[in-house]
Parts: sequence; structure tokens; C-alpha cells
Amino acid sequence: MADRKRYISVIGGGRCDERNYQIAYEVGQGIAQRGAVLVCGGLGGVMEAACKGAKSKDGLTVGILPSDDKRDANPYVDVAVPTAMGEARNAIVARSGDALIAVGGEFGTLSEIALALKMGKPVVGIETWEISKRGKKDKSILSAVGPEEALTAIFHRLGA
Amino acid sequence: MADRKRYISVIGGGRCDERNYQIAYEVGQGIAQRGAVLVCGGLGGVMEAACKGAKSKDGLTVGILPSDDKRDANPYVDVAVPTAMGEARNAIVARSGDALIAVGGEFGTLSEIALALKMGKPVVGIETWEISKRGKKDKSILSAVGPEEALTAIFHRLGA
Amino acid sequence: MADRKRYISVIGGGRCDERNYQIAYEVGQGIAQRGAVLVCGGLGGVMEAACKGAKSKDGLTVGILPSDDKRDANPYVDVAVPTAMGEARNAIVARSGDALIAVGGEFGTLSEIALALKMGKPVVGIETWEISKRGKKDKSILSAVGPEEALTAIFHRLGA
Amino acid sequence: MADRKRYISVIGGGRCDERNYQIAYEVGQGIAQRGAVLVCGGLGGVMEAACKGAKSKDGLTVGILPSDDKRDANPYVDVAVPTAMGEARNAIVARSGDALIAVGGEFGTLSEIALALKMGKPVVGIETWEISKRGKKDKSILSAVGPEEALTAIFHRLGA
Repeated sequence: MADRKRYISVIGGGRCDERNYQIAYEVGQGIAQRGAVLVCGGLGGVMEAACKGAKSKDGLTVGILPSDDKRDANPYVDVAVPTAMGEARNAIVARSGDALIAVGGEFGTLSEIALALKMGKPVVGIETWEISKRGKKDKSILSAVGPEEALTAIFHRLGA
Repeated sequence: MADRKRYISVIGGGRCDERNYQIAYEVGQGIAQRGAVLVCGGLGGVMEAACKGAKSKDGLTVGILPSDDKRDANPYVDVAVPTAMGEARNAIVARSGDALIAVGGEFGTLSEIALALKMGKPVVGIETWEISKRGKKDKSILSAVGPEEALTAIFHRLGA
Repeated sequence: MADRKRYISVIGGGRCDERNYQIAYEVGQGIAQRGAVLVCGGLGGVMEAACKGAKSKDGLTVGILPSDDKRDANPYVDVAVPTAMGEARNAIVARSGDALIAVGGEFGTLSEIALALKMGKPVVGIETWEISKRGKKDKSILSAVGPEEALTAIFHRLGA
Repeated sequence: MADRKRYISVIGGGRCDERNYQIAYEVGQGIAQRGAVLVCGGLGGVMEAACKGAKSKDGLTVGILPSDDKRDANPYVDVAVPTAMGEARNAIVARSGDALIAVGGEFGTLSEIALALKMGKPVVGIETWEISKRGKKDKSILSAVGPEEALTAIFHRLGA
């Protein structure tokens, strides 16, 4: 049932290097192994890698697309939601996760991180953005060196 | 994969009488039996009935919620998407279906019918709204007397 | 101040015949003459006519665009809001008006009518959609024969 | 006409200290003096200060609200757009400006900065977020020490 399962949003670039692809793949595997639903923006790069990893462990994957066409989803998305809302869909990606894991990423990823923090959700980052204000580092983005640490931190936070 | 499966949105009132509940339940069953994903607004009434029917046949159900809380989804929703967008989520419900089946319904349902027709998607209605302009009936909403006729019409339209 | 002025949304087709253009023009004039802000979807046809009419009486016009480009607004829009949300912007058009006046229109207009009725806002229609359910006409869309009757009905409803 | 005027979005916290209030007030004045439309999220703090400044110079102010109620707009908003979309409205605030000026701000502001950068729009910040990735500062947010420098940078970028 919808209120029982955990949902974890994985965010990151629509294109990424092999290193981040592998990290995201393992993040996706770990989410599926823990019985959680994987949510993402549905496109390539980190999103594809995470979905591919989740599917390798029989997980359930959801892609919240910016476009109006389900066929824009990567092949490892089980449920594609074509919002036709462009970047405004980032708020739904952030909202849909009980927590978020960011892997690398560009400005779109940063917007999702910020939206999730605004919503009070835990965010763990692997090789992603760091933020500071008036010269002082803000530690709201929990930093992890790799998939295992990120997954442990997130599920610990969620009390799972 | 996301681009292979059919998605059918079932729309209707968040509250409904027993008759429409039973109709929606059978519509949900038929969607699952045909291997399609059931999309709805995630709440009660017709939405709940359709999801319950789909789950009775091992279907996959998606609820696109108006609120920011996944727990607002009915218990038969597999994937809950809390849009926090209020009525604007109706456009995503319409967009996510390759076709729509309306059962009864009030103004929210009428908005989804209209949005889907604007998007060029087939819409079949059972005991739902009829529309006309300048005294002339508009036949864009395909009328069906019950679940079987609605399902046959929709899947025929989709070439399935 | 924002909470003092009335906002009236004028909805209708992005293309329309001369007759509806003239009707919408006069509706726009009447809105401006009554000191209200005119909201619309920002495009051509009825939307353009209404904005043109409002500007002829020094009114203020707002266009809530489906696209990401302010330049898609018709030339009589004072404030263009490029939502980049496609049809989902129809909910904002409905939400932004204290009341709505529909002139003709196609399915997009019908969706705005339905969304506004769902939100509990008064809707007056001139030569627009009629709706019925189970063979019984629904009279929620107030019918007017022309601009004057529509404006009188709307502002009466708003207690102005 | 909509395509002629510049639109500048001013973003920042819904609550702020006196220092940022004064900065935002002067930013709003400068935008109005340059004949541009001021867009913001419509609420208090930096948004209110900027609108108040713009109105002191007869500018035009637009508030894109997260709620469904125009009355949530601060008293210096000329045109209030109640999106009822929560944080997803941040994408519209970012999209509506040809450029953005950030004053202080929290996570919501960071999300708007990131969305605007993703959209390729110039962003100038005064005492706001700094971002870096893998230990390297990202200079996409143009830094300004005060209103005059920010305004000069923005309008220079826009070729005005």
C-alpha cells in the first residue's frame, strides 16, 4: 500500500560519467534491496543508472518526466508520469521522495536538492553540490563517500 | 518498459454511489486483465474502486494526488505521486493516460475529460457528462453502457 | 492592492470568428470599465480580443501562458506569465479569476469552466458549452446572451 | 506590450532582517526606475520589500503565489497570481524573469537560483548562497555587493 513503502528519489545529471553511472546503479540496487520505491526524473544518466540498478534487484521504478511523452522515459522506468511541466516537475520529484540521494548533477539537481530541503526532507549527496552562505558552509546536504554510506544514512534517518 | 505498456486513466468522483463503485471496480479489473497500467487521481470513490479492481487482478495502479501527502492515497494505489498542485494535477492525470474512462463524476472529472480531449486522447464515458455547444451535442466523449463496452471501445481505439 | 481589485478571467478559443472576437472585445472593455483586472491564457482569438478591449479602456491585462516564452503573448497583454506547464496552466487561469466569462471556446475552455466550477467560482458563458448529466441539464454555467448581460451577472454575483 | 518590457524576478526569504529588507527595497526601486516589471513570489520579507520599493517609483509588480488565495500577496503586489502549486511555483518565478536578483534567502531561494541557472538566465546575488562542486567554487551566480552593482550587472547582461 502506498503509505507503507518508502519512496527514495534519486537525482543527478541526465548525462554523467561512468563513475557516477556506477554509483547511481549501486544506489538503485540498494533502494530496491531495502524494499523502497525508486523515484527519479525518468531520463538518462544518473536517472537511468539508478533505475537499471533497481530493476536488477526487482525494484519498482517511477519516472516523473518533464515532457508530455512517456516514451522519453529510460527503459528501466516501470511507471512513467509525463507531466508536461518542464522544470516545474522537479518539485514533484522532490515531493515524491521520503528522502533524496543526489549523485553528481548540475543545476537541475541543485534545484531538487533545494526544494527537498525546503520541504524538510533528508538529502544525502555523493560527489554533488556543496552550498554555503556568507562564507559559511551549510551542512544540510548530508555528505556520503559512496552508495553504501548514502543508503545507510538515508534509511537510518527514515527510521527503517 | 515504460513505452510498451498501455496506461489507462480512470476518472470519476471522489465519492460515488454503489452502482458507480461497482462499475469502476470492473473497469479496473478489465484494465489489469489487459495488461495495462491504471492511472487515477489516487483518492476515494471511483478512483478507489478502480484501483481495488485492478489489484484484484494483479494490476499496477498509480495515483496522482492533489495533495503533498502520499498517505492521502487510497489503499489500492501502488505508486502514489503527491503533486501538491491541487486541481492542476488533473492535467497530469489526463496526460498520463493513453486513453481515459470516465465513470460518473463531478466538475473535476469534467475538467479531466476536457483536458484529455484537448490533448487528442480517446475518452469513453459511463454515466458521465454530456456536452453540447449552441444546442448541438458534441460526440467526442464516446458513450458506453458499462465496463465491457467501455474497455472494448478504448482498447480498440488504441489498436490493442 | 492585490486583495482589493476584482480579477475576471476571460476564456475562449485561441482562434475565433469575428462575432466572438467582437463579443470578447466588449467583455474586455466592460471589465476594464468596472476597474477589474482581466486575466486570460494570453494567446490569440478570444484572449486577444478581450485584452484589446480592456486596453482600449485603460485596463490591466494578465496572460497566463502555456509556453515558456513571454513573446507568445498577444500584444495587448500587460503582464505575461510564461508557465511552461502546457494545459496545466488552465488551472491557474481558473484560479486567478474571482469569476470567469467564457466566450465560445473549445475543449481547453471547457476544462477551464469545469476547473472554475470545481473551485466554486461563478462562471458565465456566452455562446459556449452546455453540460448535462444523465440527460439532465446542469445549470452551473450561467448563460448570457451578450457582454452586458454577462458582465452584469458576474459583478452582481461578486457583490460589486 | 509584453515582449518589450524587461521582467526581473527578485527572490529571497519570506522573512528577512532589516538590512536585507533595505537592500531589496532599493533593488525594487532600481527595477522600476529602469522601466522593468518586477516579478516575485508575492509574499513577505524580501518580496514585500522589493515590491514596496518598486511601487515607490511607480513600477509594476507581480506576485506568483504558492497558495490559492490572492489575499496572501503582500500589499505592494499589483498583479497576484495564486498558483495553488506550492513550491512548484518557484519554477514560474524563475521562468518569468529575464534575469533574477537574489537577496539573502533560504532553500526556496536556492531552488529558484538553480532553476534559473538551468534555464540559462542571468542570476545576480547579494549576500545569498554560494555554490561549489567537488571543492571548486561555481561562479554562475554573479556576486554583487549591493543594489546598484546588482542592477548594473543585470541590465548590462540583458543589453539594456
